[in-house]
Amino acid sequence: MNHLVEASLTGVDSHGIVRVPEYLGRILSVNGYGDMYEVVPDAKFTIERESPTIAVVDGGWGFGQVVARKAMDIAIGKARSYGIGIVAGRNVDHVGRAAEYTMMAAEQNMIGAMFVKVVPVMSPVGGKGRVLGNDPMSFAIPAGKENPIVVDIAMSVVAGGKVIISQEKGEKIPEGWVLDKEGKPTTDPGTYMSGGSLLPFGGHKGYALGVVMEVLGGILSGAGALADYKGNNAFTVMAMSIESFMGLDEFKAKIDKLERDIRGAPKAPGSSEIFVPGEPEFRTREKRLRDGIPITEKTWSNMGEFATRLGVKMPPV
Amino acid sequence: MNHLVEASLTGVDSHGIVRVPEYLGRILSVNGYGDMYEVVPDAKFTIERESPTIAVVDGGWGFGQVVARKAMDIAIGKARSYGIGIVAGRNVDHVGRAAEYTMMAAEQNMIGAMFVKVVPVMSPVGGKGRVLGNDPMSFAIPAGKENPIVVDIAMSVVAGGKVIISQEKGEKIPEGWVLDKEGKPTTDPGTYMSGGSLLPFGGHKGYALGVVMEVLGGILSGAGALADYKGNNAFTVMAMSIESFMGLDEFKAKIDKLERDIRGAPKAPGSSEIFVPGEPEFRTREKRLRDGIPITEKTWSNMGEFATRLGVKMPPV
Repeated sequence: MNHLVEASLTGVDSHGIVRVPEYLGRILSVNGYGDMYEVVPDAKFTIERESPTIAVVDGGWGFGQVVARKAMDIAIGKARSYGIGIVAGRNVDHVGRAAEYTMMAAEQNMIGAMFVKVVPVMSPVGGKGRVLGNDPMSFAIPAGKENPIVVDIAMSVVAGGKVIISQEKGEKIPEGWVLDKEGKPTTDPGTYMSGGSLLPFGGHKGYALGVVMEVLGGILSGAGALADYKGNNAFTVMAMSIESFMGLDEFKAKIDKLERDIRGAPKAPGSSEIFVPGEPEFRTREKRLRDGIPITEKTWSNMGEFATRLGVKMPPV
Repeated sequence: MNHLVEASLTGVDSHGIVRVPEYLGRILSVNGYGDMYEVVPDAKFTIERESPTIAVVDGGWGFGQVVARKAMDIAIGKARSYGIGIVAGRNVDHVGRAAEYTMMAAEQNMIGAMFVKVVPVMSPVGGKGRVLGNDPMSFAIPAGKENPIVVDIAMSVVAGGKVIISQEKGEKIPEGWVLDKEGKPTTDPGTYMSGGSLLPFGGHKGYALGVVMEVLGGILSGAGALADYKGNNAFTVMAMSIESFMGLDEFKAKIDKLERDIRGAPKAPGSSEIFVPGEPEFRTREKRLRDGIPITEKTWSNMGEFATRLGVKMPPV
């Protein structure tokens, strides 16, 4: 639950409290609420293979947020002893916002990285249909006085959720976001949900990184690549100690300077600011901590439905 | 020299034998041949900091190809003992094609990764001018019967060399490749060499990865980020043992299947093939091993100039 609130605070609403009904639906096996995947609330977490620097874990189909946190904790412990720790995990439900786990490493003065394998929705360059996952990749790098540098990007030009929102609003989408089920470029967002697919960002570059994510997230964890994995998510998390490279204070001072240099770089016409990766989310977080998290009526009524079902009282609006 | 021939064989001509005059010019301090950077042919290679999994090396301004090979050898040795090895290096000249080093790991049945910090030529999103390097990122993943999966991409939409070729041919470039020195989008390739800058691939995604490369390649190696590093290249190489995760045969069989599944995926209209990342380069290599490497007249005459200067006989054409 903390994970969902944190995601909503940072403005990543798609991975935030909008998911509460979905997760509850999955626990209670209520049709229509994320019933595609299994989730075991009290799942057994098993370390299947372990060496000083590397582990492979089986999440027992537990909540992704619980399993991935445990995995990153193990990676951080290994990095503390051996400079670097890597943990691959499979058989987990949705892990949510990847940056949450890489930031765990940054909070421990380490560089965090995460590679996630998700369900196929994206075409390879030259292909059509849903072959590759829109796999997220995240990095978090600790700073001194500044916020950490936080990167959390998936491999498509735009998220499927954004295409669906365009469809709901009756808007066209730019060519280059989606292929229809015949593999033709389209500006009709409706084609995505009827057998269409997302396109990788930057053409062959995003496609190539997508294939790497299938290996790091899908194959190393023992889950499987492409459509071989029948679960929701699988992942590899990594924590890397900075003090193996240089003094921590020196590193942090250099990251602070990097951030200031980027922000202070000359602006393009019409641009008033340059954001360091992760900065927009930190700003949204500050604003929402002050003003609250906006919730759509639909999410609120879905939550109310589950509250009634479970005999829980909803807070007043 | 082997590195340059290998790059040319795989079709990466920009990092191939076209560089021979530049490198010779740098050794002999001949003006106009890459005289921006220092290179010390018999440079001292120093391990500055070392732990079981991590090392930081100073290349003493040696050839990048020599220093980066040594660094990857150390990383592979560490991965053999501890599952993973990471080596960051600075004070080196041009490292050339990053895939060459990651493939060294793949040849040892490991996953290789490399992150390189190069000279600033790219604008951040919202900025103008040359702030970030067009930093390459490479991964190589060993397969069984198939070729390894090889990714080697830099963070801009297109390489600066491609813009310069368009200029030489008198062609326009698509909007979105380059900003002119005022930070305005342009279709005139000439603006790039007169104070313009490249744009990151995938907008904020390529930009965010570019910032991570400045940290992994530039800061971890002790070189410095953005314009702080006055050298040519700095880097971090990584080798990761597969047997820490699963049996090598199982892994290789899964990579083979992944490659076949991608190649066998449905094709988009007008597309006859889907390439696995690295495949076009393997094909070019096969062709050029058979038919030879095409060399431009300009490169040949530049090489001839140095041959005369050094009293070496050029081979017959």
